[in-house]
Formats: sequence, structure tokens, C-alpha cells
Amino acid sequence: MLVVMEAGARPEQIDAVVRHIEKMGLKAHTIPGASRTAIGITGSSGTKDPGIVENFPGVKEVIQVSHSYKLVSREAKPDDTIVSVGGVDVGGKGVVVVGGPCAVETLDQTRTIAEGIRRGGGQLFRGGAYKPRTSPYSFQGLGEKGLEILAKVREEFDLPIVTEAIDEESLRLVDQYADCIQIGARNMQNYSLLKVAGRARKPVLLKRGMSATLEELLLSGEYIMSEGNYNVIFCERGVRTFADHTRNTVDLSVVPAIKRISHLPILVDPSHGTGKRNKVVPMSRAAIAVGADGVLVEVHHKPEEALSDGPQAILPETFAQLVTQVGAIAEVLDRTLQPALATAR
Amino acid sequence: MLVVMEAGARPEQIDAVVRHIEKMGLKAHTIPGASRTAIGITGSSGTKDPGIVENFPGVKEVIQVSHSYKLVSREAKPDDTIVSVGGVDVGGKGVVVVGGPCAVETLDQTRTIAEGIRRGGGQLFRGGAYKPRTSPYSFQGLGEKGLEILAKVREEFDLPIVTEAIDEESLRLVDQYADCIQIGARNMQNYSLLKVAGRARKPVLLKRGMSATLEELLLSGEYIMSEGNYNVIFCERGVRTFADHTRNTVDLSVVPAIKRISHLPILVDPSHGTGKRNKVVPMSRAAIAVGADGVLVEVHHKPEEALSDGPQAILPETFAQLVTQVGAIAEVLDRTLQPALATAR
Amino acid sequence: MLVVMEAGARPEQIDAVVRHIEKMGLKAHTIPGASRTAIGITGSSGTKDPGIVENFPGVKEVIQVSHSYKLVSREAKPDDTIVSVGGVDVGGKGVVVVGGPCAVETLDQTRTIAEGIRRGGGQLFRGGAYKPRTSPYSFQGLGEKGLEILAKVREEFDLPIVTEAIDEESLRLVDQYADCIQIGARNMQNYSLLKVAGRARKPVLLKRGMSATLEELLLSGEYIMSEGNYNVIFCERGVRTFADHTRNTVDLSVVPAIKRISHLPILVDPSHGTGKRNKVVPMSRAAIAVGADGVLVEVHHKPEEALSDGPQAILPETFAQLVTQVGAIAEVLDRTLQPALATAR
Amino acid sequence: MLVVMEAGARPEQIDAVVRHIEKMGLKAHTIPGASRTAIGITGSSGTKDPGIVENFPGVKEVIQVSHSYKLVSREAKPDDTIVSVGGVDVGGKGVVVVGGPCAVETLDQTRTIAEGIRRGGGQLFRGGAYKPRTSPYSFQGLGEKGLEILAKVREEFDLPIVTEAIDEESLRLVDQYADCIQIGARNMQNYSLLKVAGRARKPVLLKRGMSATLEELLLSGEYIMSEGNYNVIFCERGVRTFADHTRNTVDLSVVPAIKRISHLPILVDPSHGTGKRNKVVPMSRAAIAVGADGVLVEVHHKPEEALSDGPQAILPETFAQLVTQVGAIAEVLDRTLQPALATAR
Repeated sequence: MLVVMEAGARPEQIDAVVRHIEKMGLKAHTIPGASRTAIGITGSSGTKDPGIVENFPGVKEVIQVSHSYKLVSREAKPDDTIVSVGGVDVGGKGVVVVGGPCAVETLDQTRTIAEGIRRGGGQLFRGGAYKPRTSPYSFQGLGEKGLEILAKVREEFDLPIVTEAIDEESLRLVDQYADCIQIGARNMQNYSLLKVAGRARKPVLLKRGMSATLEELLLSGEYIMSEGNYNVIFCERGVRTFADHTRNTVDLSVVPAIKRISHLPILVDPSHGTGKRNKVVPMSRAAIAVGADGVLVEVHHKPEEALSDGPQAILPETFAQLVTQVGAIAEVLDRTLQPALATAR
Repeated sequence: MLVVMEAGARPEQIDAVVRHIEKMGLKAHTIPGASRTAIGITGSSGTKDPGIVENFPGVKEVIQVSHSYKLVSREAKPDDTIVSVGGVDVGGKGVVVVGGPCAVETLDQTRTIAEGIRRGGGQLFRGGAYKPRTSPYSFQGLGEKGLEILAKVREEFDLPIVTEAIDEESLRLVDQYADCIQIGARNMQNYSLLKVAGRARKPVLLKRGMSATLEELLLSGEYIMSEGNYNVIFCERGVRTFADHTRNTVDLSVVPAIKRISHLPILVDPSHGTGKRNKVVPMSRAAIAVGADGVLVEVHHKPEEALSDGPQAILPETFAQLVTQVGAIAEVLDRTLQPALATAR
Repeated sequence: MLVVMEAGARPEQIDAVVRHIEKMGLKAHTIPGASRTAIGITGSSGTKDPGIVENFPGVKEVIQVSHSYKLVSREAKPDDTIVSVGGVDVGGKGVVVVGGPCAVETLDQTRTIAEGIRRGGGQLFRGGAYKPRTSPYSFQGLGEKGLEILAKVREEFDLPIVTEAIDEESLRLVDQYADCIQIGARNMQNYSLLKVAGRARKPVLLKRGMSATLEELLLSGEYIMSEGNYNVIFCERGVRTFADHTRNTVDLSVVPAIKRISHLPILVDPSHGTGKRNKVVPMSRAAIAVGADGVLVEVHHKPEEALSDGPQAILPETFAQLVTQVGAIAEVLDRTLQPALATAR
Repeated sequence: MLVVMEAGARPEQIDAVVRHIEKMGLKAHTIPGASRTAIGITGSSGTKDPGIVENFPGVKEVIQVSHSYKLVSREAKPDDTIVSVGGVDVGGKGVVVVGGPCAVETLDQTRTIAEGIRRGGGQLFRGGAYKPRTSPYSFQGLGEKGLEILAKVREEFDLPIVTEAIDEESLRLVDQYADCIQIGARNMQNYSLLKVAGRARKPVLLKRGMSATLEELLLSGEYIMSEGNYNVIFCERGVRTFADHTRNTVDLSVVPAIKRISHLPILVDPSHGTGKRNKVVPMSRAAIAVGADGVLVEVHHKPEEALSDGPQAILPETFAQLVTQVGAIAEVLDRTLQPALATAR
């Protein structure tokens, strides 16, 4: 932390700040400058916040410099983490494509789409059994029945399952039925849920909140890891801005930013990120080009009959083209498409 | 919903859209224009989303026009709702001031501050027993022990209690110990929690999420009301923007916007909204001037020793001045400070 | 500036940064910490940017701490500046209300509205002769003919004139005809125009850009002052955010933030700030309550016939109520409505 | 335009709106719905704004549906426009890489960097002679002397020149010396300057403003085209959001959005967009992958001595790698690197 004094701060004002910092058990380093003095703070203050000196007379501002994430950081673990989702590696040299419907509706619908994902070259299947919907009157998902459908589809097509949990009860069920627990953007700072996810056995796909900074996303990952679950995958899905040509603004620069600070893998979800079917393929290519470890896209064979988010789902045939293009881009970066699980059939 | 066709859309493209809308059981109203055609859609589509026609050839864009909130709306209930929080009315002609520490730390600390709130003219007491913190390594609150302290303080000072619940378990306890259940900004779209709050007996103070639109805030209120709890109070606490002179940007215009659409009361929290002690009093005045039903502010007698958010807490003596100024502003709007509960002592 | 090293930075990496800083003629202050080292930089680097060390090995980040504004700052001039606009003081103890149409259309229209402003208690008149419009096909203003109308209206009603300049040529004419030169939000960072305004004789009303930080606004004021024109008035008119219930989000907290750092006066424009007629009066009250030196509002006697921005203009009778309410709020802050100029009539 | 009535709107309120619309010379199309009525408006209202009916009793809201851009639109010209910048095509099947320093400092510096750009495979050279700087005390560029240096460098290396104009005077000179006139983000809505650019002979590179919507960017292009200059190139350079890990948030989804609506080419500037050297190459790859017609990057052989924006400039050797990677990505999209001009030497 750095305290910047006002240009006209008097020596006794500087002293008062220094004394207060020392009283908190911290070290104060006075840095006299041409026009003003700064005071660097080092050490650990436990539960007290030295930011309080911002209200001391003569203080211009207080600047935070250290970060409180540890386990998610490359400083804690320099090498890339590879997370196994039901046998498919996420992170490392491979690139994955996760596809499936926004919501699981029926066994038939789910099987048809899963067949398209498998044939199109996807390695993982996504589909919502629990849907956090903005309106209480919208379709809220099939619940455990949806999870059962997903489990059947995994057996039939050898596609490990990624699906969202929205509270403690659904998380316990998802942990049991699926291969990867998704925490959605709206729950990124639902810390009680993150702690429960930290005690689950399955890996966690953590989506960035709609107005989360990089640091907040990392700290939410830290919540999960600090409870003992080290298999965390981040996912950029667009942030909220004034821009109105897409539903959200996909912030692809967060991918290299995370790669620089953290050892954990990161995917991009261009379907929720843009909300527009015609932008899913171009943004998927861009996601791989910027360095993401994969993409997560919505696919539906009859988008006009989808129970949720139809307008952003792509058709299975478009999905197959997406996988081809994404694979070609990956090669430019010396990466390859991750192989899908072998099937016994 | 309104479908806008491209300028060069051919008649058969327009027909295809109209037929699809009608196949969904809706009515299509074609509006021919000078350079392009628009198609109005009316009726209810159940769970299907007519927005899918955005992907039809010849369609330029699809515009949402109807809203899905009902119970929170003035169309459902024209008169202002007055919510009683432990006997103190929120909404209506009175204006309330809610004060207290960010976190309950000890009985002594809480009593000292409550005494300041009572003496300074506040009607309600706030203080966190469960703290949603960005970092897993920050102080997370005293839990049930904190609720016990709050209950004692209520008895002693006749100040009804507003305190935050962060999950199902804490909500059940808050419902039991306190007078009003706060749902924080980070949980505004934690729909599972909103449903639980909707089945609680106590009123709910629902804070606006950091990037929530007006409609999303209203729909989160709708989640609570649709479960049967009609005592909802909204609270503006700043939204996230690029502006960096305050922690968040307090959006006071949301107050008259909510008053126009909804019958529910709304408070403003300038402490979290600005994150700066020196902006709490001016923004409290502005909140009442714009038409809010009250303010919620952080008060601490020794902010430099506070376990959380010290830099934004005001001193008890500043709180007393705040109440005086807020009361004077209320009178300009033909309102008055709500009286505090009578004390037996 | 502060350089934060990575936790595992090696001593020779720290040395390299220190040596580079010193080579630029600056002083480096090494601050060893428990887990990482920080390096404070003091002195003046002239035209070179020490931020370059961010790319050095072992460097985590570089944090800017000093500001480059000088003349606008209270450190340069502790007392409030009072700017005289054609004899009416802006700043100090008085509060002003500036009213008028978005665009000057005809002499009759302008006279009618000015009469309403004068009768309603306004002290200054606003009206656009040069209109920066988003579309090239929208009405662009009457130009010099509009300035002539404004000058006539000033003579008749003793209302000094505030009007916008959009380029060098229009600024020269506005400087000649009017009492205060408005620089609009879209030109806040048109530095060539700011320099010309800095050489004009009349005061300048500088509107905050739609995505300008506090520091950028202050530096744009610095551009004007550094050319010799010390009469600068800031104006908050809403910033661009995701919120969609108003056209822009009025950031009232910028008012106390500017008052703390700068000696210059600041007004608020709730008409452009919200874009909604029904929010102009409440936000005007809030602006004065937060500490602004006045408000700038759009008034039209026939808003449904206005050539621009009709939906946000208030009627003359609403304007009169606004002045009364604003005056009552000012008294709560120990301020008063500034008297209008005496009329000879 | 669509007028949505409140649920309880009375027939006479609907009539009043319809009558007013018709009085403005427009056509009103009443669309009765299950719970509320909507009114579609068609026809041209000239300079009057039918949005005024938002203030009529019984009206819930007014929704804008038509756009005012024409010449920039694919509806006006279905085929892609290819703009020739000094003989190098921008748009079409080729992809261009524009490189050079932020600011022209000396002939030597400019020659050295230009040699690196030419050798590295760039086709166009960029460098600022006029610099719009946030602070009046920062280096403001060499002016005409800088343009002379750029002209010499073009002759020697056969690299056409893109350089920024900041006002009418500099634009006249840039039009004379350079091959493409850049209008910077801060001037995107400086309409007087856009009109002058519309009367220039050289193509215009128009950067998106920091908080400009897609529609505003298109309309600024329309300003230039409506004055007769049809050679407009758009450029995405990041928008302002709350995200703080990069200087701005690059909105790559605007590229396919523009391609869908407009026939004009679009480039991406990842240097200003991210402000971080280590993100320039990944974001350049992503820009081409999403479908941009090229990238614009800052290159400096001694970034630590650059007079402006050193921390975001890449080295000439990194530039050469960037060109190679960008070319490989282009091939995935069936595009190729545009050839550089042949040199006589």
C-alpha cells in the first residue's frame, strides 16, 4: 500500500500517518519527493485495513499495491495447470471445444444435439439442468431429471458433462452426476457457493461476473482453491458495458492477462458473450487466436424451438465448421485440438 | 416485441417471419413504412422466444418491448407500499436513516455505535454478522454470535435491525433474530437465495447489483414477491463504471425511475456507493433530495480500528449532523424524518 | 510512480530497474517487503515515461501516483474561484439556475422562453446556435443568426448568455456575442479547441466528456487555464454506462470530488444527463444538495415542436417550480439563490 | 419508432398520441395487445422529434427503431469497399499491417523504425506529428516538421503514410503530405473536423471514440461520406469500461457487427486498445481471426526512450513475428497478407 501526501502536507501530518501505520504493526517507508512525500507500507496488518489513513489530514490518496490471491497465482505454481474433465484435458497444449444446448429439454433433444457435437468434433458436452433466469416466470430447467438425461448422454456418446449448479443442493447433485461443475456469472461472488464448490470432488468451471475485475475473478478462484479443490477453470463470457450491438462485451484481453498471472486454464464463451448467433464463429476463432484453452458454445438443432436463448445457439453443422476453423487457428499457435475420448462403439 | 425488416427485404421474407410468429401462437401486425417494414408481435408465447426470428433472412433486428415484472409494478398496485421494519415505516411520507458499522465486531463496539445512532436520530440499526468478502482471507463476520449481539442491542436501544444474509442457512437465522433481511449486491441475482427470502417472514432489503439494469433489479424483487413476501425495499448502492474517483458510481436517477414504475420503497447507501467517508454526507443529502425514502450509512466510533471498510465509515457526531441535514432536505419535499420507536426507558 | 516487483524477482532484476530509473535522471527508493519489493520513483523525467520498466523482467506492475494538473488545483489556489458571467457570479455562496432551449430556433421562440426564464427566477440564459448532432442529417443550428437572436434576448431580459462553440470559427463569434463559451462533452478532449478557448476573453463552461475520468476533466480545464483564461466552470452532464433507464448516468459524486481538489465552480446539467423530462426537477434538487454551484436545464414552451431534444425539455411553469425548490435546498446548505441582474425596465 | 402504452392506458389517451403523431405528418399504426397497446410510427418527421409523446399521459415508453445512417450502409452499397492508401489496398481479400512509432521524434528514429517495418513485412507506416495529449504539459508532436520527416521516409521505404490530424489546419497539411488522414478517438464526434475531412482528397482512418456505440461510429463515418469523401476506414481501439487490467477494453465483436451493416473496411489497434506491450501480438492475432482487415500497431526500436506511449510499443523484431502470425491466421480465413508496394531500389 502506498500513501501519497498532499503537496503542502506538514511534517507533523506525515509523522502522524507513520505513527499510525507502525501502531498497526506495519512498517512505514517514507519516500520524500520534489513536490510531495509518499509513504510505502509493508508487512501484514491481519484483519485491520491501513486504508483508514486516507482520512488523516494531509493525505491525498491511498493506493493499493499488493494482491490477496495466492494459490491461483503463478508465483505459487509456475507451471500451467491441466485440469482433467472426465478424462479430457483442459489446459496445456490442447484446445477444447465444449458444445451443447443452453437448457436440457428432453432426452431426445439432448441426444440429437450430443450426436451433432460428437460428430462435429467437440470433446465435452454442456447443457443446463438448473437455469438462473432473470425472470421468475421463465423456464427454470428440469433439475435432477436434466442431470439424469445428461448422464445418459455421456454414456452413449463418451462426452464428459459440464453443467451449472446454482445453490448448495444442486451443486451436490451436479458433483454426483456430471464431470465439471459450472458456477455461472451471476454467482461468481456467491462466496457460500464457492466454498461448497471448493469441497466438491469435480473440477469447477468459474465464469467471470458481468462486472468483475480480473482481481475479483482470481479471488473467486482463490475461494475454491482455498477449500482444497485445485481444479479450477476460468471462463470469460463478456462484461457489461454501454455497447449495445452485442448482449455483453467479450473482453478477450483478459485471456493473456490471466495466463500471465495464473497457472489455471481459461475458456471463452462467445454465445453468452455476444448473444448473437452470427458472432459465435468469428469470436471463437478470435478466442483461440488470443490464447484461450478452448471455447464453450451453445448448439441447438432447432434453435427456433429452444426453451431458452435460442437466438444465440448455432446449428450442429455450423458447430462442425467452428471446430475445423478453431483447430486450424490453434495450429498457428503450435497447439492442437484435444482428442475426444475414445468410444467403445 | 417488434421485428424490423431490412430496407430491401422481399415480400416472401416478410411472409416467412409472419408465418413463423403465427405458428408460435402469436399475432403478427405488419407495419409497412417508407423505406422498411416492421412487424409488431402481440400475445403470449409461453416458454418459446420469438426473438429467434432475428436469424431469419431479411430481418434487421428484433426489439424487446414488454417487461416481465408484474407484482413490483404500479400497474399491479398503484399506491406506494409502506414496509414496516420492526415497527418503523419505510416508504410513505417519512424518511428513515439507517446507521451502524459495516461489521459487528464485539458487543461493546456495537453498543457504543448503537448509542450514537440512537442519540444522533437514526431509526434503524445496521451491522453485518455475515460478510461477503472479495478475498477468502478477509474477516468473514461473527455469524450467529453477531446476530445475538444485534438482538441485544435492539432490546437496549429500541432500534430494529437490518442485517445481511448470504445463504440459505444464514437467511434462516437472520429471519429469526433480525427485523429486515438484507440481500447484498453480489447476491442480487442469486435466485435460489431470493426464493428463500420470498418465503421468509421478515421484510427484505434488496441491494442493486453492481451492473444490474433497472429491469433486472425489478425482476429480482419480483422473485421475492412471487414467493409470497410482499415486503421488499430496494436499495441503490452504486454501479460499476470507468469512473475512478469513487469506488462505485451512485446512480441517483434510478430513484425517480423506480418510483415511476414500482410501488415499493427505495433507499440509497452512499457509504458503499462512494467508498469515501467525505462523500457520505453530501450524497445522503442528494439521495433525499432526489426522492429516496431514506439512506443507509456506515458509522463507526473508531473507524481506524474497524475490521472492515473503515475508510468509508463516518463518526457518530457526523451521523448526527447527517440526520439533521437530511431532515431539513426532506421538509423541502414535504416529507419528515420518520420518528424512532418510543423507548420504555 | 511505484514499481511493484514479482514475489520471486531476483536481486539483479531489481538492480536493473533501479539502474534504468537512475539513468533517466530520477531517484529510485527501494522498499523491501515481506513477500515482494516495491520501488518508489521520485523526481521529474521530463518527456520520458518511466512506465517503460513495466516490460522489464521481474516487474509485476507499475502504478501511477502523481497528477499533472496544477493551475486547476487547490494546491495552486486554496480559495474558491468565483467566475462572473456577464455580471452574474458563478461559484461562492450563491447558486445559479441557467435555463433555455436546446436550440435557438426563432426570435419569437427564444423571446418567449427567455421571458419564462426571467419570470421563473433564472439568472442566466442558455440556447444553442451551433449544435453538434450525432447525425449529419439533423438540424445543426442557426449559426451566427442564432447568436444575434441570443444577443437581442440578453438586452431585452438582462439574462447573460451561455452558448456552445464547436470549432475555432464559432468560438470566435461566441466570444464576441455571448457571455460564456460552452465547450460540449464531445469536444472535452478537442485540445485544439481548448487552447483557442484559453485565449478567449469570456469564461468557459467545460462539460465533462461522456467517458472522462475526473483527472481528464481537470486536465482539460488545465489546457484552458494554461493559455491564460482563468475563468473555467466545470459541468457534469452524465457519463455513459450500461444503465438504460436514463440516457446517461449522472455522476453527482464528482461534485464533492471536484470541490475537494479544485477551486473552480461546477454546475450540473440534468437535462442532457438523464434525457427524461420527468427526472430534471428531482436531479436538480439533488445537484444542489450535493453541493453544485448551480444547474443548467433545458426549457421550451412547446417541447413537442422543438427542433432538438424536445423530450427532455421542461415547461416554463415547471422551471419556476424548479427554481423555488432549488432555492429551498440551497438554504439547507447555507447558500442562497444568486440574484438575477437588475433590469432597467 | 414504437410507442408502448401503459397497461391501464385509456382509449382517449391512445387517441391523443395517435392524433399528435398524425399532426406531425406521420402515420400511426395502432397494435392492440393482450395487456397493452403499442403504436408504430412510420413516415418522415423532418426536423421534429416524435419522441416527445413519451411525455403524454398513458405512455410507458418510446422505442427508436430506425437508423439515420445511409451511405455507410450495405443497404446503400452491398459490396465491400476497398480503399487505396497510397497504392496499398485496405479491405477486400488482403490484410494489412500498419506499424510505426506513436510519435515522430527525429528523422533518424523514424528511418530506423521504418526500416524495421519494411523488413518485418508491414505495408503501411504510421507515426504522429500532431499528438492529442491528455495533459497540456506533455510532448505535443513536431507538427509540420514531423510531416516532412514522414514524407521523406515514404520516399525511401515505399511505405504510404497514415498520420493523425487534430484540427482544420493540421488536417490540410496531413492531406498534403500523407496518404491517409487519421481522426483520433477523442475527435470522433468533432463534427466540424469530420466535415473538413469529408472535403479532403485522401482517405480517412476514423477511430472509434472511447464510449461510442456502433451507431455513433457509423454516423461519424456518414458525416465524412456525406461531404463527398467515400474512402473511410473504421478502426476499433478499445472502449472505456470498469476493467483495469488493460488501458481500454478492445471490443472485437464490433468487427463482425460493422461488416454486417457496412461495406467499409475496419482495422484494429491493439496498442492503444490494451496499453500493454505483452498483449499486442495476441490481440493482433485475434483481430485478424475475428475478421478485421488489418491491424495498426506501435513499434519503437528503443521504447524506453520513446517520447510518448513507450510502454505499449513493441520492438521491430516482435513486429516481424506479428506479421508472420497474422499472415498465418489470415490464411485460415482464406485471406492473405496484402503485398507491400514494390520498391524501385
